[in-house]
Amino acid sequence: MSNIRHALTVKRADDFAQWYQEVISAADMAEESGVRGCMVIKPWGYGIWERIQRLLDDRIKDAGHENCYFPIFIPLSNFEREAAHVEGFAKEMAVVTHHRLIADGEGGLKPDPEAKLEEPLIVRPTSETLIGDAMARWIQSWRDLPMLTNQWANVVRWEMRTRTFLRTSEFLWQEGHTAHANDVEAKAHTLKMLEVYRACAQDDLAMPVTAGEKPENERFPGAVETWSIEAMMQDGKALQAGTSHYLGTNFAKASGIQYQDREGSQQFCHTTSWGVSTRLIGAVIMTHGDDDGLRVPPAIAPHQIIILPMLREKPEDEALLAYCEELRAGIAQHQALGEKIRILLDKKPGKTGAKRWNWVRKGAPIIIEVGGRDMEAGTVSLLRRDRLWADNGKPDFTAPTSGDAVKLIPALLEEIQQSLFDEAEQRRDANITRGITTMEELAQFYDASKTHPGWAEVQWSKPTGPALEAIIEQLKSLKLTIRNVPIGLEPADGPCIFTGEPAVERIYVAKAY
Amino acid sequence: MSNIRHALTVKRADDFAQWYQEVISAADMAEESGVRGCMVIKPWGYGIWERIQRLLDDRIKDAGHENCYFPIFIPLSNFEREAAHVEGFAKEMAVVTHHRLIADGEGGLKPDPEAKLEEPLIVRPTSETLIGDAMARWIQSWRDLPMLTNQWANVVRWEMRTRTFLRTSEFLWQEGHTAHANDVEAKAHTLKMLEVYRACAQDDLAMPVTAGEKPENERFPGAVETWSIEAMMQDGKALQAGTSHYLGTNFAKASGIQYQDREGSQQFCHTTSWGVSTRLIGAVIMTHGDDDGLRVPPAIAPHQIIILPMLREKPEDEALLAYCEELRAGIAQHQALGEKIRILLDKKPGKTGAKRWNWVRKGAPIIIEVGGRDMEAGTVSLLRRDRLWADNGKPDFTAPTSGDAVKLIPALLEEIQQSLFDEAEQRRDANITRGITTMEELAQFYDASKTHPGWAEVQWSKPTGPALEAIIEQLKSLKLTIRNVPIGLEPADGPCIFTGEPAVERIYVAKAY
Repeated sequence: MSNIRHALTVKRADDFAQWYQEVISAADMAEESGVRGCMVIKPWGYGIWERIQRLLDDRIKDAGHENCYFPIFIPLSNFEREAAHVEGFAKEMAVVTHHRLIADGEGGLKPDPEAKLEEPLIVRPTSETLIGDAMARWIQSWRDLPMLTNQWANVVRWEMRTRTFLRTSEFLWQEGHTAHANDVEAKAHTLKMLEVYRACAQDDLAMPVTAGEKPENERFPGAVETWSIEAMMQDGKALQAGTSHYLGTNFAKASGIQYQDREGSQQFCHTTSWGVSTRLIGAVIMTHGDDDGLRVPPAIAPHQIIILPMLREKPEDEALLAYCEELRAGIAQHQALGEKIRILLDKKPGKTGAKRWNWVRKGAPIIIEVGGRDMEAGTVSLLRRDRLWADNGKPDFTAPTSGDAVKLIPALLEEIQQSLFDEAEQRRDANITRGITTMEELAQFYDASKTHPGWAEVQWSKPTGPALEAIIEQLKSLKLTIRNVPIGLEPADGPCIFTGEPAVERIYVAKAY
Repeated sequence: MSNIRHALTVKRADDFAQWYQEVISAADMAEESGVRGCMVIKPWGYGIWERIQRLLDDRIKDAGHENCYFPIFIPLSNFEREAAHVEGFAKEMAVVTHHRLIADGEGGLKPDPEAKLEEPLIVRPTSETLIGDAMARWIQSWRDLPMLTNQWANVVRWEMRTRTFLRTSEFLWQEGHTAHANDVEAKAHTLKMLEVYRACAQDDLAMPVTAGEKPENERFPGAVETWSIEAMMQDGKALQAGTSHYLGTNFAKASGIQYQDREGSQQFCHTTSWGVSTRLIGAVIMTHGDDDGLRVPPAIAPHQIIILPMLREKPEDEALLAYCEELRAGIAQHQALGEKIRILLDKKPGKTGAKRWNWVRKGAPIIIEVGGRDMEAGTVSLLRRDRLWADNGKPDFTAPTSGDAVKLIPALLEEIQQSLFDEAEQRRDANITRGITTMEELAQFYDASKTHPGWAEVQWSKPTGPALEAIIEQLKSLKLTIRNVPIGLEPADGPCIFTGEPAVERIYVAKAY
């Protein structure tokens, strides 16, 4: 099918990084803001985030959490108190030192020296310490437990090298923080939220993920256990799409989160935290995008269906618009994927062809074009974004009657959602290599000649401390990391790839974002 | 009914400001964060904000807007460019000057002198300038107009005196920004969004408001017209609950927002902006609260109905919980106010009496208590929060059968919503005084002896410039301000209260938050 003229100028196979940037601009999702490392999220990108947010928020609330809002600023002394915590964020943070501007005498403005803060404020890189302080105030007795809290917010980490959605100085996220009476409940909750993330990734984002525990070197600073979901991008790299941490009593001790148990004695709470961010949008692009732009899974598409009337700025337009509006209203009455169908009748001025390709690049799941001849025949021209091209190298339009279109659309949206997942899952599964048993084989497998080697499933003896550190350094020289210890893999049955000792479990090793 | 023992310690009539603070803490809505001027919004307060946000967001999207997200930081130079703009925010802003912390050599941390920013960044007090820059990039031709944009975000204005929800250094808001081809369309849009705010306040918050134009001295800096909705609090003061600005071409010229018209020539856009904030939560408290706490209108109540099983930590609890769960599931199937009913079965440990009064103070619209005797009789004990007390000074429980409760609840929620609005409207109308025609009368009316004098509807000749400034000063000495020129009042028919000249319109004068 080399005769296809794709809608993007860069192909995934030619330059994946460049392709990623082109999708973002061609789908009009985000752009550089002119403010260092910060992005402007445009309507199509933000609309996808709103959809992710709403679906995940429902899942978080169903799991018993309540949303709160904590301040954007954290006093410097909070970070001093939690020195271990600060290490994790490499101290690259935005520091507020003044609370007023004054004229600089040269026609400009400057921070007012008279308005210097006694204690600098940090723009939150995470709200761990503030929420810890609040929980210490809020929790008195076992009756207050579990305390299940979540926050949707912007956070700032001063990043030197940024990449839209994947790594930006400011990003949007949710951070869940919970306190429990004991380790059993807190650990169970850590896994419950990992499962919420897995379900959201797979069922909402149509993105297959591997849930598992991170090796000790990849733990969140201060965490006792860190779990993640890992997704495979189309270049074979791994992307950590969400993490869930069991924090033991470490943070409870730092913040003084205690409760009186049923016997009347004071106990430290066991806490958890977990988060996902606008990074997920980058993951969706690199999971579902193709050489024509993005393909948005219907569950998270701001508009699932676009109707494009072929307007000619002539009196006939009126009848055509009425025909399209009837179609729109008919479809809008139906549900798909458990919600009302989201459909847009795009009446904006412009040529239908140009508008079609805009929506193709944005990845609206279904595009319906309607011209005068369609109307006369009582039909519509329907295009599935997930299967764009016919064998003849042209867009694969079908021509159901308007009535049939209304009827078939709910099932079609669900089919597209499933089909995007299946496609990604098959690709992921085909790109996990097993049977590598030595570091030499691993180095060979990831040698520079391969563009997209994917992941390696290997066995290890779970070394810790300095032994693990040495392994991490070795892997680093190959630009590899241990992604996680996936839940549900076969037991180990061979030697450890690193030590030669009997292995205890299987892990995924990969290049990663 | 002096034998009533109210749930709060402070009564509105005794100390309104103190009562306001007590409601916030007794209803567990928010608290001081320990970070200067910033609040922690707790689940019940944030839940109300989420409800307001969802209902208003639907209205904003129905009016054709798309949500975006712009950076938290604004370069200093943007403010220098818009000097007029900066004046409006009194230059009290959080200034980021460094991007890293280092050890201070004394066991603490300090801003790293090596990591000083070349250009300071301001934590956004509003996004006018960044969104203006973006629109200048995004708008090319008449085909791109109108551009209808909205953002939900946190903003920071360094406030010296703060008051939870009403005036805080950080607050949450939405800011709409739109660009249009000409003044007619932009002015119409300014009024359209004013109407959206009016509808949201009245239909969702059950809060009567007066929509009208602000006098020129109260305009947003750089605006050609500023419109507001004003609500009357129970102490008779006015609270500006939302504003909508027609900005002419002032901001378009500052940011270079131009378009090519149908004839091919370059034109400046006419822009608008409009916003509401978490201040609305304060308005809801001071509109609907009573001496027993908050009363949340059902449309914005996180939970509209609370079921309280009278648990005794005995085996009988199981049957009681099953009875309550059946009731919950029955009610949850129904809709009220156009949405699924939000109902909570509160199984938390604790005494039923204490739990009841907690929910009374929070203002859940309906509380249903169910004990063993209720279950045996097949009934429930139902309490309306808006009419809490019976004539005998006790909570006014009714005892419908469980089946009847399921049936009557949808209509009951709608009745409570209407009844809260009617009560507030009657109070507002009863506290607008007409017929004051001279400044002496006005001064007398607002003399110190009156606790809650309310608003005065007076007539004026709409003086401008220095004449207006002199009037504003005079009013200021009485702690009064002109709220707005309400839409829809009778034409003027007398002399101007300030100048004695023939009046041209009627205005509201009041003390205000």
